[in-house]
Amino acid sequence: MLVTDLVNIRYLTGFTGSNAALLVHVHGDQHTLLCTDSRYSEQSARQAPDIRVDIARACGRRLAEFANESEYKRLLFESNVVTVEDHATLSGTTKGIELQGISGLVEQLREVKDDGEIDLIRQACAAGDAALAALLKAGGLREGRSERDVARDLEWRMFEAGADGIAFETIVATGANSAIPHHRPTEAVLAHGDFVKLDFGALVDGYHSDMTRTFVLGALSDWQRAAYDVVLASQLAGCEAVRSGVTDGELDAASRDVIEAAGMGRHFTHGLGHGVGLRIHEAPAITKTGEGKLLSGAVVTVEPGVYFPGRGGVRIEDTLVVRDSGAELLTLTSKDLTIV
Amino acid sequence: MLVTDLVNIRYLTGFTGSNAALLVHVHGDQHTLLCTDSRYSEQSARQAPDIRVDIARACGRRLAEFANESEYKRLLFESNVVTVEDHATLSGTTKGIELQGISGLVEQLREVKDDGEIDLIRQACAAGDAALAALLKAGGLREGRSERDVARDLEWRMFEAGADGIAFETIVATGANSAIPHHRPTEAVLAHGDFVKLDFGALVDGYHSDMTRTFVLGALSDWQRAAYDVVLASQLAGCEAVRSGVTDGELDAASRDVIEAAGMGRHFTHGLGHGVGLRIHEAPAITKTGEGKLLSGAVVTVEPGVYFPGRGGVRIEDTLVVRDSGAELLTLTSKDLTIV
Repeated sequence: MLVTDLVNIRYLTGFTGSNAALLVHVHGDQHTLLCTDSRYSEQSARQAPDIRVDIARACGRRLAEFANESEYKRLLFESNVVTVEDHATLSGTTKGIELQGISGLVEQLREVKDDGEIDLIRQACAAGDAALAALLKAGGLREGRSERDVARDLEWRMFEAGADGIAFETIVATGANSAIPHHRPTEAVLAHGDFVKLDFGALVDGYHSDMTRTFVLGALSDWQRAAYDVVLASQLAGCEAVRSGVTDGELDAASRDVIEAAGMGRHFTHGLGHGVGLRIHEAPAITKTGEGKLLSGAVVTVEPGVYFPGRGGVRIEDTLVVRDSGAELLTLTSKDLTIV
Repeated sequence: MLVTDLVNIRYLTGFTGSNAALLVHVHGDQHTLLCTDSRYSEQSARQAPDIRVDIARACGRRLAEFANESEYKRLLFESNVVTVEDHATLSGTTKGIELQGISGLVEQLREVKDDGEIDLIRQACAAGDAALAALLKAGGLREGRSERDVARDLEWRMFEAGADGIAFETIVATGANSAIPHHRPTEAVLAHGDFVKLDFGALVDGYHSDMTRTFVLGALSDWQRAAYDVVLASQLAGCEAVRSGVTDGELDAASRDVIEAAGMGRHFTHGLGHGVGLRIHEAPAITKTGEGKLLSGAVVTVEPGVYFPGRGGVRIEDTLVVRDSGAELLTLTSKDLTIV
């Protein structure tokens, strides 16, 4: 099988360079061949010491040539990764070989995490928790600061707390902006009475964390309390429903039902959550129509929200490990309604 | 034409969400249709006010259905973007339509930047220059600091200097690590006599900058001076050779010849440079075998380097605008050999 997705290659070999392809052989690991370019010859030897490495610029093509020279009968490729153009090149290079597309095979392996992977996600979540605690302690959420300043401050504190990087573009959304589910921080200034929504994560050795908390600045109004209480109840119901064997749709419903019962269903405009690992979004997708079952060892988010355009919104999100007996919570920051 | 590459969609519409597809019609802009999901309904209306927006989760599929309902005869798709799997879905959805793959059409448009784009890259380069100047002024390159600390410090200073983000994972490589062209910062500590190589960039409104400088810590040895002088002469020759009409291969040669003449050719293990814009690496690729001609208004890097495994390496890189009469330098930090 020719693997060309870089995250899948990292998962299978440990190699993290930006140009690579991998040939995995049905007859065992001793036939595995990694290809990368000359910039990464030292790094590949260090990160994947047990794997034979070939150096070329056009890695996929080089390995296809190798498969051809080796007279392989059949070559699987990642049909969810290989483009139509690359497929044409691959076909041209491997004339004697039967090409067979396969979708999401390595992604499926990645869905269940081992203890080492969970530990890295736990570390990333802890960096997020520590950063947010430090931000709050330093009075970092205060009137007059811009969304951008708060985002930079929070990111800096994640690095201080041991993150290698940020998991995705940090969302800081204040006031009416908090009604935009995926808002990019602007020069908008935090003001008295605002909802301030923070959605952020850290990266540790390639693994991501993901957490959202929503605060109220200075004073709370009735509609804010109503919205917050409903989302919190929904989020707790979702966390409670996480265990292996539950379907993605059932989990979504456990959380969504609470919001719908409160008459706010049409303000919850997205799915409940997603898997987290070497990518910030990976399998499973936890949506209304999801039919897959949660697997023990998967790591998922539970993140219901309600959004009132022009006024504001609330989202509360945790990252959790799916276990047979329930969920292990990795993001530990309090979810109690907090006025800062 | 169905456009599904998110950067191409951003280029054509201004919309920056993480899920979108775009239908561009041969009969004019009034037929353009953008699709994104419900998280981005506010944002798409704000960023692409003149474009009709449809809301759906599976955007590509939704627009393919629309093309089908509208009885389009022919639909172009991006063969360098659409995967084999997505192509099968597209074929299934558009039974009456002739599908035709086209590779890199929007990328080709993106190669030549307009003044507004160049200005954003200029701002990104200025943020990089300012950050490095501030780092040096604060004594940020000093013995005993880790590569990671220096990387975080430099990134923080880019934000302070107006960057929206970092352009790519910052490279800080000290001592023997500087011999690794693409090194990730580690806990390795800067030591007396080290080469310290910094390769970094800022992001301003989606546009990237890219610059490399190599410093010497405390004291300079003869081999370091020899290597630095050769790379600097090579880099200056490369910058001198930049003008519209020159081929990528000729530009590469102008710089590489200097290193080869000094007998260090085999230590220059990568291409000379690449285009920079909405992606950190885009067209053109400036390599030995490049046959394309530089276009006026393209923005490229010139980044020769020599690497001595186990000892250290030097790279010097600028970002430049290609003009008819030569190059406009955007990264303005001095390239003189500097002992810090």
